[in-house]
Amino acid sequence: MEKIKSGKTKDVFRLESGHILLKFKDDVTGKDGVFDPGANEVGLSIEGSGDAALRMTRYFFELFKEKGIPTHYVTSNIEEKTMEVLPAEVFGQGLECICRYRAVGSFFRRYHSCVEEGKDLDGLVEFTLKDDAAGDPLINQDAMIMLGIASAEEYDLLHKWTREISDVIKAVLAKKGLELYDIKLEFGKDAEGRVMLIDEVSGGNMRVYKGDEYVQPLDLPGLILE
Amino acid sequence: MEKIKSGKTKDVFRLESGHILLKFKDDVTGKDGVFDPGANEVGLSIEGSGDAALRMTRYFFELFKEKGIPTHYVTSNIEEKTMEVLPAEVFGQGLECICRYRAVGSFFRRYHSCVEEGKDLDGLVEFTLKDDAAGDPLINQDAMIMLGIASAEEYDLLHKWTREISDVIKAVLAKKGLELYDIKLEFGKDAEGRVMLIDEVSGGNMRVYKGDEYVQPLDLPGLILE
Repeated sequence: MEKIKSGKTKDVFRLESGHILLKFKDDVTGKDGVFDPGANEVGLSIEGSGDAALRMTRYFFELFKEKGIPTHYVTSNIEEKTMEVLPAEVFGQGLECICRYRAVGSFFRRYHSCVEEGKDLDGLVEFTLKDDAAGDPLINQDAMIMLGIASAEEYDLLHKWTREISDVIKAVLAKKGLELYDIKLEFGKDAEGRVMLIDEVSGGNMRVYKGDEYVQPLDLPGLILE
Repeated sequence: MEKIKSGKTKDVFRLESGHILLKFKDDVTGKDGVFDPGANEVGLSIEGSGDAALRMTRYFFELFKEKGIPTHYVTSNIEEKTMEVLPAEVFGQGLECICRYRAVGSFFRRYHSCVEEGKDLDGLVEFTLKDDAAGDPLINQDAMIMLGIASAEEYDLLHKWTREISDVIKAVLAKKGLELYDIKLEFGKDAEGRVMLIDEVSGGNMRVYKGDEYVQPLDLPGLILE
């Protein structure tokens, strides 16, 4: 197999079958040694973080399969920390699809003049471009369509699925007494243009609280999967 | 009459009739002594800038009246550099409604990874909050509605009118051999909730080119009105 890319938290290989193999690493994003899922830099290495991300991702992707939500997931190997997926093209140069249930983080910093920190948001959807240098800029529907990042139909689908998938995850967490504050998802499309959920669904992509306590991403598999 | 506010480029008074009087000043926004309509600070004072802004605004507001587009404009006095307008409440704490025909300025800086500088944009509409401290953040439809800045119906109207009004201005400029690159408008609503165009429509709100040459805002009245 051929190595295509060495990512921040995963290495990416092309298999002879044409499928893609993602090898989860123990590197997490953060700054100054503190794990921060919203950060753009790899800040530290935490033993078991790759394993935790893969187990969460497998759990949710299998759940989405049952629910008829298309994903790139094929199979996974927990021991090897690998996940086999369908090849997919990202939107633009990478698009983050965010669903927010509480006004925290970058959303609160942006709109602090007109919202209280922690205010309930009813599954508000936002899109940001993956562009570290430009600070992952927010992009609206008009710009996404006019810059050719998504067609009008794709935009509607991305918006709808971001909300629906996040609602599923929120409900799973709620059953465990956890509250999802916000989450970022990524979508891609196959050679025929079919849109599907890609990448991972793990503690590194979501902000979760138990009552007033922030739950560390690495504690999530223990609370959700067992 | 009672002074309500001393703004960056205008002083605002309440008249006994209940109407509002805007007194245009010769202060313009900019930085380090250079006029920059996109800047948040008052950088310098240019003799005649208040007069130029008022004459442009009067011209366009009278044109919109003919076209049946509601504005807050009542009358104006060029000698006094004053404009009498209807009272209006802004959206949120002030909302800038931007229409873009070329990928330049902050739009290009934000999306430089996926657009060429100067690329044609087909009247793309964006909204930003007036919040100097937060850098006038972009806000999407979901957030505008969920934060109560505009209702869903108001959002649609703001989007539609921003595009329509900008198209009218673009056509006026085109007849004079000028090209509108982008423009920012502001809307308000009266006590009955009727939406109307407010503030000013002047060189300070638009970026205009003649061929490859940027046209200084203060040169616009001479090119457009005469």
